[in-house]
Amino acid sequence: MLEELKEKVFKANLQLVKYGLVVLTWGNVSGIDREKGLFVIKPSGVPYDSMTADDMVVMDLNGNKIEGRLNPSSDTPTHAELYRKFGNIGGIVHTHSSWACSWAQAGRDIPAYGTTHADFANGSIPCARGLSEQEVAEEYELNTGKVIAEEFEKRNIDPDECPAVLVHRHGPFTWGKDSFKAVENALILEEVAKMACRTEKIAVGSKESNIGIEQYLLDKHYQRKHGKNAYYGQK
Amino acid sequence: MLEELKEKVFKANLQLVKYGLVVLTWGNVSGIDREKGLFVIKPSGVPYDSMTADDMVVMDLNGNKIEGRLNPSSDTPTHAELYRKFGNIGGIVHTHSSWACSWAQAGRDIPAYGTTHADFANGSIPCARGLSEQEVAEEYELNTGKVIAEEFEKRNIDPDECPAVLVHRHGPFTWGKDSFKAVENALILEEVAKMACRTEKIAVGSKESNIGIEQYLLDKHYQRKHGKNAYYGQK
Amino acid sequence: MLEELKEKVFKANLQLVKYGLVVLTWGNVSGIDREKGLFVIKPSGVPYDSMTADDMVVMDLNGNKIEGRLNPSSDTPTHAELYRKFGNIGGIVHTHSSWACSWAQAGRDIPAYGTTHADFANGSIPCARGLSEQEVAEEYELNTGKVIAEEFEKRNIDPDECPAVLVHRHGPFTWGKDSFKAVENALILEEVAKMACRTEKIAVGSKESNIGIEQYLLDKHYQRKHGKNAYYGQK
Amino acid sequence: MLEELKEKVFKANLQLVKYGLVVLTWGNVSGIDREKGLFVIKPSGVPYDSMTADDMVVMDLNGNKIEGRLNPSSDTPTHAELYRKFGNIGGIVHTHSSWACSWAQAGRDIPAYGTTHADFANGSIPCARGLSEQEVAEEYELNTGKVIAEEFEKRNIDPDECPAVLVHRHGPFTWGKDSFKAVENALILEEVAKMACRTEKIAVGSKESNIGIEQYLLDKHYQRKHGKNAYYGQK
Repeated sequence: MLEELKEKVFKANLQLVKYGLVVLTWGNVSGIDREKGLFVIKPSGVPYDSMTADDMVVMDLNGNKIEGRLNPSSDTPTHAELYRKFGNIGGIVHTHSSWACSWAQAGRDIPAYGTTHADFANGSIPCARGLSEQEVAEEYELNTGKVIAEEFEKRNIDPDECPAVLVHRHGPFTWGKDSFKAVENALILEEVAKMACRTEKIAVGSKESNIGIEQYLLDKHYQRKHGKNAYYGQK
Repeated sequence: MLEELKEKVFKANLQLVKYGLVVLTWGNVSGIDREKGLFVIKPSGVPYDSMTADDMVVMDLNGNKIEGRLNPSSDTPTHAELYRKFGNIGGIVHTHSSWACSWAQAGRDIPAYGTTHADFANGSIPCARGLSEQEVAEEYELNTGKVIAEEFEKRNIDPDECPAVLVHRHGPFTWGKDSFKAVENALILEEVAKMACRTEKIAVGSKESNIGIEQYLLDKHYQRKHGKNAYYGQK
Repeated sequence: MLEELKEKVFKANLQLVKYGLVVLTWGNVSGIDREKGLFVIKPSGVPYDSMTADDMVVMDLNGNKIEGRLNPSSDTPTHAELYRKFGNIGGIVHTHSSWACSWAQAGRDIPAYGTTHADFANGSIPCARGLSEQEVAEEYELNTGKVIAEEFEKRNIDPDECPAVLVHRHGPFTWGKDSFKAVENALILEEVAKMACRTEKIAVGSKESNIGIEQYLLDKHYQRKHGKNAYYGQK
Repeated sequence: MLEELKEKVFKANLQLVKYGLVVLTWGNVSGIDREKGLFVIKPSGVPYDSMTADDMVVMDLNGNKIEGRLNPSSDTPTHAELYRKFGNIGGIVHTHSSWACSWAQAGRDIPAYGTTHADFANGSIPCARGLSEQEVAEEYELNTGKVIAEEFEKRNIDPDECPAVLVHRHGPFTWGKDSFKAVENALILEEVAKMACRTEKIAVGSKESNIGIEQYLLDKHYQRKHGKNAYYGQK
């Protein structure tokens, strides 16, 4: 079942390797069929170079395995929760990419320092609050998803305008209209995280430590690429 | 029309990928035919690996599309303005290369710290002033070009002696006698930006924080490579 | 003799190159046959691209060469000591990988800053104490192994729960159930060392410089991957 | 003439590319035939991918071109001076490798922070004093060589025990018994320069900022690899 989606999710998983976003088995991509209410996800701990499309696991949104010989990624309950709460997204990625993880470990939002960021997200990339001891003890991966959704709701961030989050002490999740777009967003997040760290270090050498993109410039870049009158790219 | 120039500009665009200066579609190269007053530029948002020479777009200097099925790069009005103001340049590159962008995001000129820099430019690489809210709202990309030209005029910098600029909160533009030289300059700028950041960090560990190349050494290196008695390279 | 183990150790040595963990000949992998009490190790100073499985050297645990035309790695007595003291390990790796060496040169433990670390080790990666002048003068490489074992004993660290150590002013040793797992751990250590350095730098820009993973989150990640009820990966 | 040496120097030049030590044409390797008193060097400003062994230029030690269609590297007088002053060396390399250049631009010696350094050089890597305005104006490249030799003499450093120097505001020169060894030393210097910078940054996060390898450990590592009783590698 869902052979086409499996193929897509499989290929998107391999893009993580191509883009240098994963080491060993440290990442996973999923993609959803909204009509059927089923999503396809990478199996847990399987090396990328021996993995096949057929190894992908089919899950329903209640966390039941519908098809697949292998165990799904241990992060599957987080994916399911994000699909439930963020109704427009079609693909999700989790990685341990180095720069994004370093911001997550430091427990900081990634501030919008320039237009590379503004082309990607309509504001800071939030670092969600840490989970409590109880939230870790009981249904840890599900609670990870709940805390992400809570953070977006609390801060009134539209997940369609900010396709990424940092999980506290852990690392990034990104999403998009499908698996490929979610991988692309994981790559952009890593670039943005790297530039933000370097920007802060370079600003230290400056007399005026004035950094942070102006709101009107952020709006301009975000809207010219994602707004209803966007004019970046082809139609 | 301009098939040879299209081929050249196309190949120069691919060099951005080869040199690791672009991620996804984040960059564009153009080249001009000064006699005809037309320039050729990359289409907007087209992936490098499916792009062909035939996808290149031909523009006149007033911003009219002369030939091409696709939309030109959204940065086209910036290129046009630079061709109008900087009469000797034959090719222009814009990238979001990480180190140069980080200096641009920090809003700082890149100081001349050594001979690698002096071999490239006859002084600091300027970071142009930020655009005002109105300049962003109206003809943003054109105004970006105007602000660059204004910065060079205000500081009395000869664009032939400084083939690069940082756009505030955004990233680098570089130029040269043709598209290939402009790409080479984008690569050099990235190396120079990286070394400058590292130089500042290493100098912190020093007792005497005396950095910045001596003027006579800068002159020597710039002149031995670019002056009328240059003796670097072959004739 | 031990042809299969030689082949395995040879291939594990080549993985160091593939993973970018070694420059020139700066690294060595060994693997042990516990039943026979013999281990196989890379020869000293032989380039990776001309090395063959047949060049591997067979040693006993008393430091006698049992088979092999070439001299074993100069670090062989350290390997032997670790095999003697850490009874469960089947493979050992030593590299001069850049990030791990930088922590070793700084003389610091690598603190557990996030879940990437917690998935790997059940606490900080210890930097062992420096060797005394006498310990360096007499049986330096053997004493290096003794100081590592002493550090684990003194701090009451179980080598099965922390598969890595930093040798003061020198660099990392890692181990695992076999040579391949030891190489994998060398790769993970390098990633963890890189992220830890970046985490500290990013935290500097924060108002609250609160870093360090919570103990309950560390336990959760370590146990879900390595504990008796581990549910990461396939059975 | 010297066809074998030309081939060797040509191949050593290509190794600079393979090891990632050069960008564009920013580097040069030479090798000397001490019996004939002639050395072979890369031509100036020729791209590595179109260069052939036949493009190498033959020079005598007085700076006269003996054979070759092309201009020799503009740094040729520096090479000649080093061959005259450092009687045991057989090959010389100059690069603009990023980490070594950053130390040179900061005007700092690279301190010996660990055993990777001690395996390479018997103490700090000196950054030579800057050239005076007059020294730059007259015979700049020759004076660069003279200042290097002066620095080694003034500090009583044996060039056979320290195969590298940083030219102030410029970048590294390295040497060795032949061209290949000089390239290897350029690679090691870059690794050592990178680790030294990272070591200082990591040490900042430490309570005790005690860095710098102990003299007895430096001696041990230098001697076990280079001393008369060296036991690293094969015979």
